[in-house]
Amino acid sequence: MIDIINGSKDELFATLKERSTVDFKDYQPQVDEILQGIQERGDEALLEYTKKFDGAVFTPQQIAVTEEEFQGAYDEVAEGFVAALRLAIKNIREYHEKQKQNSWFTSSEGVFLGQKVSPIASVGIYVPGGTAAYPSSVLMNALPAIVAGVKRIVMVTPPGKEGKLSPGVLVAAKELGIKEVYKVGGAQAVGALAFGTQSIPKVDKIVGPGNIYVATAKRAVYGYVDIDMIAGPSEILVLADESANPRYVAADLLSQAEHDPLASSLLITTSEVLAEEVKEEVLRQTALLERKEIIEKSLKDYGKIILVKNLEEAVAFANEIAPEHLELCVEKPFEVLNSIENAGAIFLGHYTPEPLGDYLAGPNHVLPTSGTAKFYSPLSVEDYMKKSSVIYYSQEALKKVKDEVMILAEAEGLTAHKNSIKVRYEEND
Amino acid sequence: MIDIINGSKDELFATLKERSTVDFKDYQPQVDEILQGIQERGDEALLEYTKKFDGAVFTPQQIAVTEEEFQGAYDEVAEGFVAALRLAIKNIREYHEKQKQNSWFTSSEGVFLGQKVSPIASVGIYVPGGTAAYPSSVLMNALPAIVAGVKRIVMVTPPGKEGKLSPGVLVAAKELGIKEVYKVGGAQAVGALAFGTQSIPKVDKIVGPGNIYVATAKRAVYGYVDIDMIAGPSEILVLADESANPRYVAADLLSQAEHDPLASSLLITTSEVLAEEVKEEVLRQTALLERKEIIEKSLKDYGKIILVKNLEEAVAFANEIAPEHLELCVEKPFEVLNSIENAGAIFLGHYTPEPLGDYLAGPNHVLPTSGTAKFYSPLSVEDYMKKSSVIYYSQEALKKVKDEVMILAEAEGLTAHKNSIKVRYEEND
Repeated sequence: MIDIINGSKDELFATLKERSTVDFKDYQPQVDEILQGIQERGDEALLEYTKKFDGAVFTPQQIAVTEEEFQGAYDEVAEGFVAALRLAIKNIREYHEKQKQNSWFTSSEGVFLGQKVSPIASVGIYVPGGTAAYPSSVLMNALPAIVAGVKRIVMVTPPGKEGKLSPGVLVAAKELGIKEVYKVGGAQAVGALAFGTQSIPKVDKIVGPGNIYVATAKRAVYGYVDIDMIAGPSEILVLADESANPRYVAADLLSQAEHDPLASSLLITTSEVLAEEVKEEVLRQTALLERKEIIEKSLKDYGKIILVKNLEEAVAFANEIAPEHLELCVEKPFEVLNSIENAGAIFLGHYTPEPLGDYLAGPNHVLPTSGTAKFYSPLSVEDYMKKSSVIYYSQEALKKVKDEVMILAEAEGLTAHKNSIKVRYEEND
Repeated sequence: MIDIINGSKDELFATLKERSTVDFKDYQPQVDEILQGIQERGDEALLEYTKKFDGAVFTPQQIAVTEEEFQGAYDEVAEGFVAALRLAIKNIREYHEKQKQNSWFTSSEGVFLGQKVSPIASVGIYVPGGTAAYPSSVLMNALPAIVAGVKRIVMVTPPGKEGKLSPGVLVAAKELGIKEVYKVGGAQAVGALAFGTQSIPKVDKIVGPGNIYVATAKRAVYGYVDIDMIAGPSEILVLADESANPRYVAADLLSQAEHDPLASSLLITTSEVLAEEVKEEVLRQTALLERKEIIEKSLKDYGKIILVKNLEEAVAFANEIAPEHLELCVEKPFEVLNSIENAGAIFLGHYTPEPLGDYLAGPNHVLPTSGTAKFYSPLSVEDYMKKSSVIYYSQEALKKVKDEVMILAEAEGLTAHKNSIKVRYEEND
């Protein structure tokens, strides 16, 4: 069931904002204790917590995934899975290759200026366990790191009670050539990646989705290491005119709603007929879907159909919402694209459903949520690289600008700054 | 006074790490109260706090800097200042122009993929007051935003008791064409930028240095808006061989030490002779410098000369420290550059002192501190832009990959995702 609204959108904005407010404070004490345990006792604490929270009992030698386990996983995945995964890998790799930046420099009259671009040395990828163990998440987090040239890529993921991992996740890691995979999860895995233990050397950056304990731990270790953004609930905004097919639009809204009771599925349209038809289609299709209960809950709280007078109004609304996923189901999607200012990923036309982007179109599916597309970007190769400025001045080149540097240093009262120029041009005393 | 050490560096690393641990918790309650005041009472609270903390009494009409105030500032700056500033602006703008990224796309067989790059809509720049009111900081924070194409650039800076601002800062803003400058500072200014008040419309991102209250406020509003990194104490590592001039090296170390008692100035060298000479030069030059007391304190706690056997060892040490500023005062600096993996800005040769980069070489002086150059980059045009992925598939193109998408969705148990592909290829019922 999805309501049609027509009028003030302030209430809708307030509801959506409310949704992403998570209070990390409630989880902080327990997470801090776990992190301290890892920092002080390393592997010993890691294995203790793994037993306590995941029910799996390991020796330190058993937490790394073995070649046998990788091979065993291939026997468990469905037919066609490996081929589909390889197509996804090919497309994602090709898209991300385009993001790779080069070092550059300029040089003239004794002045050499540049920017050196290099990969981060080591990265840890968190992959959730259980029903949220998504092979696609492995691809989307690891492939930009691989393209960036990160030398050491580590994966951690919580084991089931029997110490087993999701075969789909293992196959995805293997296909990417990731060798270092550890069967640990939760705040303890984040702690191991941030501080290092006897079995798991520390990394420079931790990425990947996780539950509230994982997110709280990532926030806590931020500074020791870098982290990616902490994602809020998923969202789609479908912007449609009368050319849209109500069955397609409804199916796309439902694909978002099935993620999570907090997921938000919005349709904004200029067509009253479409609004009514989508409303009906949502009812009809929901009844046929496996994850019906999640969908109904999510649509009830965060699903809406918004009627507007014209496309301009729809575009202004989309820019204000700054959705994670934006579908332009309109007659001339490339024309509307020009006016879109804020969105994580933009899907054009009637045959570009959002799930296509989740799996294998190529662009990353890790996207800014909760309106942060106003200032954040999709996960990219750049998130795994860093830059250094490079400056060289010859003796003559420095001489030409020495007075200006000294005037500016003097103006700021930084006289030792001025002195560092001055000593280079005074007689040795 | 600077000590020469020779042997284990673990203690040094521990000392440097300790230095940057700031406990935000102590300031959180007061900052939270201020932010809440701004959120609930807007201008009224903003003016109250400005009176309380800065001693300046304003009406809402008086907090924006007027054209008269801008013009008056030009009469107060030193001779040559405006010309020096304009040279700095020219160089900084030219360097940052090279960082600008374009939107791009690829297109083949009914598939269009791209990345749309666009500026963040509005940015607020915090500029500290008093003796830390640095015109160079205005240039370094604002110019990348201007080059990025940010439409609205706002500046806030705390007034003195008479409600006056630093003339150098005002001239810098005026030279850059920044019109919206407000005479407010502290946590209340950060709150005004993040939530908006009657006089100051909210922005999407807040950048710029500030004291502990400003830093705590920026952390607190992070999520409502984006923020830049929160910088730790400044640092320099000079890597020198026997070709280096001890007077220059000493002067460069001292220019860093004068910033702050927490600033760190390190020399790592292969030459024992140089080590001894720099030690003496540091003593000699310090005696002549205005900010002698800060320098002595900072050198005592965080200044060191480290002797190593060869350049390889020196480079390994530099990569582990990942300094904010790295000077390569060696015979063949471009050869050493190849081995440098982690540093904010790298200064090559004997005539590229760090203060040159602070003011006018061109690269940004806002750099990653405390070893975060392992994963962070200098402030750049990219920090003021954001990206959206763009995907278009034709009906035929989707048909070619529909089975693979459905297999992957099925593998993850996301059947509504599968359904969104399926509805597009089944007969209308």
